[in-house]
Amino acid sequence: MNAPEPALQHADPLAVAASLAAELAATAVERDAAGGHARHERQLIRASGLLTLSIPADFGGQGAGWDTTLQAVRILARADSALAHVFAFHHLQLAGIQLYGTQQQQRHLLHASVDDNLFWGNALNPLDRRLAATDAKGDFILDGTKSFASGSVGSDWLTISAWHEPTQSSLIGVLPTGADGVDVRADWDAFGQKQTDSGTVQFHGTLLPVGLVLQQPGQAATPLSTVRSQVAQLIMTNLYLGIAEGAFAAARDYTAGEARPWFASGVASAVDDPFVQHRYGELWTLLRPAVVLADHAGRELERVFRLGDGVTARDRGELAVAGAEAKVLAHRAAIEIGSQLFELTGARSTSARFGFDRYWRNARVHTLHDPVDYKYRDLGRYALTGALPEPSPYS
Amino acid sequence: MNAPEPALQHADPLAVAASLAAELAATAVERDAAGGHARHERQLIRASGLLTLSIPADFGGQGAGWDTTLQAVRILARADSALAHVFAFHHLQLAGIQLYGTQQQQRHLLHASVDDNLFWGNALNPLDRRLAATDAKGDFILDGTKSFASGSVGSDWLTISAWHEPTQSSLIGVLPTGADGVDVRADWDAFGQKQTDSGTVQFHGTLLPVGLVLQQPGQAATPLSTVRSQVAQLIMTNLYLGIAEGAFAAARDYTAGEARPWFASGVASAVDDPFVQHRYGELWTLLRPAVVLADHAGRELERVFRLGDGVTARDRGELAVAGAEAKVLAHRAAIEIGSQLFELTGARSTSARFGFDRYWRNARVHTLHDPVDYKYRDLGRYALTGALPEPSPYS
Amino acid sequence: MNAPEPALQHADPLAVAASLAAELAATAVERDAAGGHARHERQLIRASGLLTLSIPADFGGQGAGWDTTLQAVRILARADSALAHVFAFHHLQLAGIQLYGTQQQQRHLLHASVDDNLFWGNALNPLDRRLAATDAKGDFILDGTKSFASGSVGSDWLTISAWHEPTQSSLIGVLPTGADGVDVRADWDAFGQKQTDSGTVQFHGTLLPVGLVLQQPGQAATPLSTVRSQVAQLIMTNLYLGIAEGAFAAARDYTAGEARPWFASGVASAVDDPFVQHRYGELWTLLRPAVVLADHAGRELERVFRLGDGVTARDRGELAVAGAEAKVLAHRAAIEIGSQLFELTGARSTSARFGFDRYWRNARVHTLHDPVDYKYRDLGRYALTGALPEPSPYS
Amino acid sequence: MNAPEPALQHADPLAVAASLAAELAATAVERDAAGGHARHERQLIRASGLLTLSIPADFGGQGAGWDTTLQAVRILARADSALAHVFAFHHLQLAGIQLYGTQQQQRHLLHASVDDNLFWGNALNPLDRRLAATDAKGDFILDGTKSFASGSVGSDWLTISAWHEPTQSSLIGVLPTGADGVDVRADWDAFGQKQTDSGTVQFHGTLLPVGLVLQQPGQAATPLSTVRSQVAQLIMTNLYLGIAEGAFAAARDYTAGEARPWFASGVASAVDDPFVQHRYGELWTLLRPAVVLADHAGRELERVFRLGDGVTARDRGELAVAGAEAKVLAHRAAIEIGSQLFELTGARSTSARFGFDRYWRNARVHTLHDPVDYKYRDLGRYALTGALPEPSPYS
Repeated sequence: MNAPEPALQHADPLAVAASLAAELAATAVERDAAGGHARHERQLIRASGLLTLSIPADFGGQGAGWDTTLQAVRILARADSALAHVFAFHHLQLAGIQLYGTQQQQRHLLHASVDDNLFWGNALNPLDRRLAATDAKGDFILDGTKSFASGSVGSDWLTISAWHEPTQSSLIGVLPTGADGVDVRADWDAFGQKQTDSGTVQFHGTLLPVGLVLQQPGQAATPLSTVRSQVAQLIMTNLYLGIAEGAFAAARDYTAGEARPWFASGVASAVDDPFVQHRYGELWTLLRPAVVLADHAGRELERVFRLGDGVTARDRGELAVAGAEAKVLAHRAAIEIGSQLFELTGARSTSARFGFDRYWRNARVHTLHDPVDYKYRDLGRYALTGALPEPSPYS
Repeated sequence: MNAPEPALQHADPLAVAASLAAELAATAVERDAAGGHARHERQLIRASGLLTLSIPADFGGQGAGWDTTLQAVRILARADSALAHVFAFHHLQLAGIQLYGTQQQQRHLLHASVDDNLFWGNALNPLDRRLAATDAKGDFILDGTKSFASGSVGSDWLTISAWHEPTQSSLIGVLPTGADGVDVRADWDAFGQKQTDSGTVQFHGTLLPVGLVLQQPGQAATPLSTVRSQVAQLIMTNLYLGIAEGAFAAARDYTAGEARPWFASGVASAVDDPFVQHRYGELWTLLRPAVVLADHAGRELERVFRLGDGVTARDRGELAVAGAEAKVLAHRAAIEIGSQLFELTGARSTSARFGFDRYWRNARVHTLHDPVDYKYRDLGRYALTGALPEPSPYS
Repeated sequence: MNAPEPALQHADPLAVAASLAAELAATAVERDAAGGHARHERQLIRASGLLTLSIPADFGGQGAGWDTTLQAVRILARADSALAHVFAFHHLQLAGIQLYGTQQQQRHLLHASVDDNLFWGNALNPLDRRLAATDAKGDFILDGTKSFASGSVGSDWLTISAWHEPTQSSLIGVLPTGADGVDVRADWDAFGQKQTDSGTVQFHGTLLPVGLVLQQPGQAATPLSTVRSQVAQLIMTNLYLGIAEGAFAAARDYTAGEARPWFASGVASAVDDPFVQHRYGELWTLLRPAVVLADHAGRELERVFRLGDGVTARDRGELAVAGAEAKVLAHRAAIEIGSQLFELTGARSTSARFGFDRYWRNARVHTLHDPVDYKYRDLGRYALTGALPEPSPYS
Repeated sequence: MNAPEPALQHADPLAVAASLAAELAATAVERDAAGGHARHERQLIRASGLLTLSIPADFGGQGAGWDTTLQAVRILARADSALAHVFAFHHLQLAGIQLYGTQQQQRHLLHASVDDNLFWGNALNPLDRRLAATDAKGDFILDGTKSFASGSVGSDWLTISAWHEPTQSSLIGVLPTGADGVDVRADWDAFGQKQTDSGTVQFHGTLLPVGLVLQQPGQAATPLSTVRSQVAQLIMTNLYLGIAEGAFAAARDYTAGEARPWFASGVASAVDDPFVQHRYGELWTLLRPAVVLADHAGRELERVFRLGDGVTARDRGELAVAGAEAKVLAHRAAIEIGSQLFELTGARSTSARFGFDRYWRNARVHTLHDPVDYKYRDLGRYALTGALPEPSPYS
């Protein structure tokens, strides 16, 4: 796809991402079939230098805007949407540190991330209250479980949320994955997005020092802190979009290079079949708007994120609307292109050696993160009454 | 709709357009029912000063970019898509003068347009060869007919094309509507876009002086000259979009202000019905991408138009792709919103006094300008092989 | 369309309907433009003999099954869906007499309908409580208003419902339209279905003798009595379907006989354009299932109706499911074919003299009788849990 | 699904099929993951007695109508669409013997099929000319390859087609799979329909005795013989439909039994979520018409098949139209339900242990048998001009 990619100063991270994507593509079909932990490929990501992409220059990072980081996510997702997810969720944790953490925590954790080229994983799902934090002389002790912890397997550090009964609220903190009493189980077995390392993390009397608590129990959410779910939503959007773009490109190359014209078509080449042309046109009009609106929302995220504590509820809400628009379009594009591409490539393209079904499987699994019908509802409410989406982990 | 409207220096033409739109809106339902020539409203347009909007400042005009002129078209179309068409086609003729005419012709005709606040109409349809131009001592004599001549009724000047048998090509020229041997018949009787003044123009031995010929018989089309059809296509796009936006706003206001909740819904207000909210969300995701891609294409038109003779076939072709994307989205948005709005407003909203059916009727008639299936085909060809749309009066 | 039409003994009512439809078709475009009361055409319906079609032979009628009566409705709707509605609602009132009335009332009213060739209209809308019935020495006095009273203008007799405050319930009765204190106002002004004579009926101290009360205040609904709304729903379905079939046939005839191939199509005739063929195929797959399921539901109605007091809640509920399936398909077919046909017939087909927009306008107005989204909901509930639709005036 | 299943005399084959389906269902997810040849399950099919289902009673079979055989196919496909395909293609070969063979061949081959409970496979694809038949003293020698030979692996007998150069036509014959010079390679590796045993059959100087040739080289196709592709098309239709029904039932059971309500839904149970209900209603209206039209076409096939040599081109063509209608609806239902079900079951339902992705994968692979766009084209041509589909292996 020809999403306009902004010119970048010095080392161009999108060129790096493209090069990394090509490496991942070489084994993507085979790794999709095998599933499991992609140790080697995570090393490739680490070696690319892109783990510091979104870290502000002040903390030693590359200081890329969120629009750029999201473009990098999309580029990787064209080739391998599972590892792109691991990469993207690493940056989501870095965003969380900036949105929740004190200046000192940010300095400490982000500098360490740069210095040690740390890979972050996610164990933060505030709707799941099975992980409890109890007070322990100013610090906290963690007991319980977080499932669907993306990128947890093989990570260096984790962001976690835990339910604090006395305040009836969640705290948010960080911990080394190797800390005592932390156990990561690789039990993810979905039929798509197989290598997202989305394990289950178990905590047994794990000490969480107060200095690693980013959001204290009972601490009210601010418009700024609730921007985190918008980072997450736009990561989803760009992952879906990368899948859609990857599927489109794979289909196009196959139709142009391999497909045979249908015997009843009367044309010499599949690319000259009017029904094939028309359907590509239809898929194009699913894809292009999703790209343009995702780019727009990415720029909005960057703008709002940089407002810092100045973010208002309206800024945040309008960002959520821009994100919701882009997300439903990307959702639809990924599912439809991932499924309809076969009408254009035909029976022979279903051979397992092409792995073309992985686009639909990856899109199908990943688009269930939160129900699309509630995004339509939120957009409808906004369109009808101007009501902004209620801040939540999913909106 | 909240299409972002650029800040403008001095007299803001979009504010003027909004004010003019409000005037047209006041009588739009009643004039739609009556049909015929809207003499008074054309005077309102003339009085607004917007007839000089797209004329370069060098020739005394307001020098607005095409993106701005198209925004003005869209604003008017929200209220009255027939008069917006008349207004837009006036500017299409001015574009033609700039694209086909010599420097001298441009200076002469555009200055005259400013000085006399001329209203231009269209009698240029190169596929229709029923109007013949014969050589007459260096000038030409015109005989025959042009139908579907938008804005011809009540115009001051016309752009015409005529078939020139010796060269097997069309010439393009301009003429005062009141010239000897020019006869305009108001015979447009479609069920929508009723007041577009799209009459039939008959020529009986009409003299076309060579000085008024913008494109000589046999003169080859250039990438620049073929930009005209892209101006026309983007006018269509913005007219469809204005209809879609007008329909959406009318529906929203009705649902919020007048509609009753369905007895089985269990909610107190129609805006709280989950099915209503969801459907508004769906329509919003039809509308928003069309708006964003139309704005993008409008800026592209402005950029390419200003390249002048430097326009390449690739510039022109990529503009055509951007335009085709926007046009199919706008087409779909206008038809679907124009039809589906009633699912959201209910039986009582079909009273003729609201005139809500005019959105569908106007969109339905206007979107037939050229078949949408050939736009999908063109986009599909481009997506598949990179082939640019062939320049034609419709692509 | 080639809906299989059952062979019928002696005078074939569907042949009569086809002949009547041809008469209505001759003036349908012009009457649609004019609107108002179609006195002459109602006389044609009366003269056709079809007003007695659904009346059982025991009461002197033709004794046709409901499947046949609905086929007749559909045939008329292909030509003129407004008068088909008037015709169909006449039969709905006759159904009501059979479903609510005592044996004696049935004998009296149905015989009178045959003997005097009565034309019945509808003033029964139980959700609208503005018409009050007060007790008066065993009879009732009516005061208030019923709007959207289909077929009331020009009718001989009316079915009415009225709110009875003491029992907090509605009664249902019948009255001559010309009774003292009954005033019918022809105030229907929708943009489609213009000649349905759906006026407002006002009652001023009107006497309703107890002998004309079909359902007493406080009388519980039975599975049988609630079949009435299923008759109404299937009438809607067949009206929508007639519109869809009429639109399809009009489009097909135009494409085959009048349309020009698009200049860029490379084919000699519009019927050879692959995009035209494909789209006709798509519309066909909207239409055919709707026809087949409507026929199925019509036969089910006939079967359940004849069970009389033996109708169970399950019989009635499964009929409602069959009806809902058919109705949403017919709704979609009518709206989509009424709108999309123009993609197949092109710009010239929008001339008002063809009147092709009336299919969409008629379908659009009529499909708003009750919201399609609640039909999907009812079907979804049934599919999910087996729950039958709750009996209501609309389900 | 509640497709009405006709009452059957004595041993009810649909009950047998249901019981067999339950056996297949028990291991379907695991066998789908493993792929390969399902030796044990083919034995279960054989043991069920259903291999003789479609064989006329005159030849010792059960004499079921095609409508019944297709119902059995559909029932099996709900549980395991790959083995249902193997089963169905067995019956397709039996159909071929009846459509092409002499009375003597029919008697011989069908009696043998009953006596030895033979399992037939397919190596008949007339568009693939890589298998050549050369004349050899009245018999033929076969050399070359047939790929995509459904059910060939593990079969007892095969139907084959081979290109005969002298007559520029194909012959059709039968052979024991174990004949000298026949080699079956299990090389099918599609991502769905994994256990269809669709191998590649290689022939090396294989003798085809003339007595086993059902259709001689140069023998003209008759309306009767071309009914074979309609049997094949309706098998496809019922396989798609079985997949759609299986997917629908699996989703419904999961939503009702396992799914959690979305946190923002405000309802206590997923089945009460209005968006869930609405979407089930939408999927229901995809499924039900496909069922009803498939049943209709199945009865038509049975009727036409029994006309024997009396089949006219019109009979055959109208059957092809009925089949095409049903097939596009079944195609759409299977793909959409197989993909959309996840919007209704949510993220947890993507665990590989449920195997819910197999519905989409199976439908996706199988619906590529021939392009749906050419079915729409055929239906469009018929709707526009009455042209019947041209007989071909796919229409």
